[in-house]
Amino acid sequence: MGHLESITSPQDLRNLSDAEMDALAAEIRDLMISTVARTSGHLGPNLGVVELTLAIHRVFDSPRDRVVFDTGHQAYVHKLVTGRHDIFGTLRQEGGLSGYPSQAESDHDIVENSHASTSLSYADGLAKAYRVKGEDRHVVAVIGDGALTGGMAWEALNNIAIARDSRLVIVVNDNERSYTPTIGGLATALTSLRTNPRYEQVLDQVKRRLNAVPGVGHAAYDALHAVKKGMKDALAPQGLFEDLGLKYVGPVDGHDRDAMEQALTQAKRFGGPVIVHAITRKGMGYDPAERHEADQFHAPGPFDVQTGAEKPKGRIWTDHFSDKIVQIGERREDVVAITAAMMHPVGLDTFATRFPERTFDVGIAEQHAATSAAGMAMGGLHPVFAVYATFLNRAFDQVLMDVALHKCGVTFVLDRSGVTGDDGASHNGMWDMSILQVVPGLRLAAPRDVTRLGELLDEAVLVDDAPTVVRFPKGPPPADVDAIDKAGHADVLVRSGDQDVLVVAVGSMCTVAVDVAERLAAQGIGVTVVDPRWVKPVDPAIVDLARRHSLVVSIEDNGRVGGCGAVLLQTLNDAGVATPFRLHGIPQEFLDHAKRDVILSRIGLDAQTIARGIVEDVTAVADGRALHDADHPA
Amino acid sequence: MGHLESITSPQDLRNLSDAEMDALAAEIRDLMISTVARTSGHLGPNLGVVELTLAIHRVFDSPRDRVVFDTGHQAYVHKLVTGRHDIFGTLRQEGGLSGYPSQAESDHDIVENSHASTSLSYADGLAKAYRVKGEDRHVVAVIGDGALTGGMAWEALNNIAIARDSRLVIVVNDNERSYTPTIGGLATALTSLRTNPRYEQVLDQVKRRLNAVPGVGHAAYDALHAVKKGMKDALAPQGLFEDLGLKYVGPVDGHDRDAMEQALTQAKRFGGPVIVHAITRKGMGYDPAERHEADQFHAPGPFDVQTGAEKPKGRIWTDHFSDKIVQIGERREDVVAITAAMMHPVGLDTFATRFPERTFDVGIAEQHAATSAAGMAMGGLHPVFAVYATFLNRAFDQVLMDVALHKCGVTFVLDRSGVTGDDGASHNGMWDMSILQVVPGLRLAAPRDVTRLGELLDEAVLVDDAPTVVRFPKGPPPADVDAIDKAGHADVLVRSGDQDVLVVAVGSMCTVAVDVAERLAAQGIGVTVVDPRWVKPVDPAIVDLARRHSLVVSIEDNGRVGGCGAVLLQTLNDAGVATPFRLHGIPQEFLDHAKRDVILSRIGLDAQTIARGIVEDVTAVADGRALHDADHPA
Repeated sequence: MGHLESITSPQDLRNLSDAEMDALAAEIRDLMISTVARTSGHLGPNLGVVELTLAIHRVFDSPRDRVVFDTGHQAYVHKLVTGRHDIFGTLRQEGGLSGYPSQAESDHDIVENSHASTSLSYADGLAKAYRVKGEDRHVVAVIGDGALTGGMAWEALNNIAIARDSRLVIVVNDNERSYTPTIGGLATALTSLRTNPRYEQVLDQVKRRLNAVPGVGHAAYDALHAVKKGMKDALAPQGLFEDLGLKYVGPVDGHDRDAMEQALTQAKRFGGPVIVHAITRKGMGYDPAERHEADQFHAPGPFDVQTGAEKPKGRIWTDHFSDKIVQIGERREDVVAITAAMMHPVGLDTFATRFPERTFDVGIAEQHAATSAAGMAMGGLHPVFAVYATFLNRAFDQVLMDVALHKCGVTFVLDRSGVTGDDGASHNGMWDMSILQVVPGLRLAAPRDVTRLGELLDEAVLVDDAPTVVRFPKGPPPADVDAIDKAGHADVLVRSGDQDVLVVAVGSMCTVAVDVAERLAAQGIGVTVVDPRWVKPVDPAIVDLARRHSLVVSIEDNGRVGGCGAVLLQTLNDAGVATPFRLHGIPQEFLDHAKRDVILSRIGLDAQTIARGIVEDVTAVADGRALHDADHPA
Repeated sequence: MGHLESITSPQDLRNLSDAEMDALAAEIRDLMISTVARTSGHLGPNLGVVELTLAIHRVFDSPRDRVVFDTGHQAYVHKLVTGRHDIFGTLRQEGGLSGYPSQAESDHDIVENSHASTSLSYADGLAKAYRVKGEDRHVVAVIGDGALTGGMAWEALNNIAIARDSRLVIVVNDNERSYTPTIGGLATALTSLRTNPRYEQVLDQVKRRLNAVPGVGHAAYDALHAVKKGMKDALAPQGLFEDLGLKYVGPVDGHDRDAMEQALTQAKRFGGPVIVHAITRKGMGYDPAERHEADQFHAPGPFDVQTGAEKPKGRIWTDHFSDKIVQIGERREDVVAITAAMMHPVGLDTFATRFPERTFDVGIAEQHAATSAAGMAMGGLHPVFAVYATFLNRAFDQVLMDVALHKCGVTFVLDRSGVTGDDGASHNGMWDMSILQVVPGLRLAAPRDVTRLGELLDEAVLVDDAPTVVRFPKGPPPADVDAIDKAGHADVLVRSGDQDVLVVAVGSMCTVAVDVAERLAAQGIGVTVVDPRWVKPVDPAIVDLARRHSLVVSIEDNGRVGGCGAVLLQTLNDAGVATPFRLHGIPQEFLDHAKRDVILSRIGLDAQTIARGIVEDVTAVADGRALHDADHPA
């Protein structure tokens, strides 16, 4: 390492010559590649914003000026030049650097949420605050073309367009593909902007540079700089943005730091909101990423730096869903699939190949996904919308008022539910089983293993008069756990000794519950473990079981407040069942990033902790005492 | 009545001559005005879509073709020509016609949800379903210019633009003001479309007609028809919609049925998605509405047909909030106000007049409202976002991930919480106290009267490290109920006899609880009534009180599942307090429209029903029996 060590704050960037800056960019790429190869993380997006980020930090004065990254996984370069390069090796490790901006890490960070399309709204708010307070500070928002498809971005653009004196610069990072190729009319509009005569020139340059830069090299920079003097873009509004009344600079080669600095300087001087349209390449400067067809190493697991080969992952829950939905598609012509710009991550790629005319990628647009699904159901189809659990929060109103109110048969498949871990607070899928409880008529299933995933999906797509939800966690599934009996629609998994304790285990917590039961059996405590399969509505058989036990224990990988345990407690109370009740779930707080298992232990959702608690509770019940206070109360 | 009686289905419209159609339009206006004068309802929007709706039903073949109304309150004309004119007098009455489309009423109705900006998504879904199934049916979506500011509309347009073979016609009902003047860049874009040479001509015609049509007359129609032959619009994409790749017809005079029919016929023939841009006037054809400055009689209460004078309403909750927020604004320069296109309905108009530079109307854009508020808080302001409770559902993810995750001091003021009644299922504010329970750090207050509203607002705007919520119902506030004591931060309202029963009453249910206590006192049952004021987090003092009573009763005007009672039950359980618990709240279902009081009685949230239940519960507790099953279990 050479120049990076001398950069303790963005101020230090201003002392570097062009050649030094180019060397720095190469160092940054090297460090990001070698680190993510070990830690996993978001690589492609960060390789694409090296020069763009350096230019922003040379032209603006962070943290006085504020830099907001949309979908914060593109903030690695920002972290490296704001005093964190020495601890970059701890990326995404417990206690180490977050994979997203973090206010606790640095004054240069402001927005931590990883949900897309928010940056323009934050930036509009910040700029308005500075205007109201009379502070002369700039706000820079960096947003990808993909995130512009989200409705929030539209709402924000509408407002920014009339905030004529906002000191707000919007950098559109246009790589023609965020997760997957940008969808829809916006793509058309951006394409139309790209027909600007300058665009062909810019694209040629980017392409030539790609050819000229094998591996992590950066040799062609200086040679190209001479060519690009025609690129000083005027403040000329164009196309879509012109229609909205926004000033526009571009397109600019986002890998030409000099051109970016010129464009940003122009935008900064303007004194009102300006769009700077930067064309970049995801994965830029790392051959295996550039060549990676699916997503330019969007977020690889650990990999070999030389070859780019990822370590084999084994089959995960998503793969099993992927197979199953194709099977369902084969026998049901009315089943269609929807994704919000996550075709591959949610496992719909095989379905899309097999049934292209029955697959819809709506862009980063969960609201439209849900309501257009309602429309499709009204039109006689059965849509399956596969989405990460945390992102369904975006469509809560649509699930409630559009799908459920109209009794539409739409199936929501929630991948990455529960604790996801590495990606930090906003990726955990710990909200769905609480907020969906309020939706009248909605039925929710949590399969404990892949056999149940298949069965419950089959059952879900048969429901044609209500929304159904099937949710499963991130990562590899556990071994199958067969039922030893049925209780209503629920599966009985364990009956050991004289069953004093009823354990109601939800989804992936069934495996933990079986482990708990074994630990308790060793201590002579008899347990019934039951998997409700469908957790909403509560099965009357579970109520009956609860009545006949002396302690009820619920375990779920969802927030404790208002989740499956809470609704079971409420249901038992409504039915006059007063059996002592212990609720295990995720404490209702934003969780710091770490590996999933580490977090589950930390919050007490491991077999050892739960078993120990049950022993105490059983003793209290036997002694006629009240249960002790919960460790993580509501 | 003349022609309307002969219209039992839209088919019947095709047999009428132009003159008969004009007479029909006048009849429809007369009937809507005289009915709404008595029943209350949405008048201005429906007067603006008379000709537009008639044209749609002459050109398309409902219910085979589907007509989707955005924000369904503009569907009265549609109802009148689809077989419901004879029962139109029952509008918004219990058991009568809904103020919104209703599948139960008619096969011609499809979308019942009244939340804005959804129609394009439903329509996209319907059109895709018909395409997949090979059915040759058209879908027509009618959307106002205001609703286009919602992010969902953008997400849908993006998708519709690439669905090249969708048989989808989007009628943009552009009246330059939906609730209030359309906000932002979109307005600029629409203005630019209006610079089409045809627009001036159209606007002149509309204006002349307005002058020529006093009262409910329609005399100028025939004369004008001759002038407008130059109006046949080509299928020529323009401006914003062109950028998105959408075909465009317009602008068309939305009150010229003939021109509208021609435009719609062109659009229908095209075979792909088309925008038809209709210019209309809200309140058209009724002088008092046209002259009404604030909102053209958007949704008047009962009024006098001759003068347009509304019956005096008295002061409602909103008025008290309106006064209080101005007071707060006087002493706190950092307090700013945000509305999502509802400046007057949420009572921010006075604040806006007094502090224009600190007031932001973001359009129908609840997501942007919440996240830009987070940005403003990050920038050192304290934003107050006033919104109807049901519409905050649109911003759940933003409250959670943008405001709460970043510990932003933003105050959400939820008007029309609880049962609202007349406006049907999607207007009831019965979800907020459940879904907001899961938001870490968020604090929620429910004032029982206007004195508490003032106090709690004062407390809320002091919180600078977490979101706060203050929620109150629709209509006139009750008389103040003074506290007789404090318990922690809670107010003790009643202590009668030997207090066996603890009643925890939330917000507007406090008045009911005091009534309940009086009824019980008369039967010798001693009651403590406590108002938590802040219902989230649960006050430890309430837990202590619960421990010292033999029955806990919670009462709230929120859904039973996951609400204040449910979280109190869970909190007591976590604390090892096993006092028998009875939860009163709104059954977790979509409620049919009726007056608020009628609904509250129907669902058992009246003093008589609750008191009767407590007598039974007290008896069961005294006898050592379990409480009987709840009437509306979770």
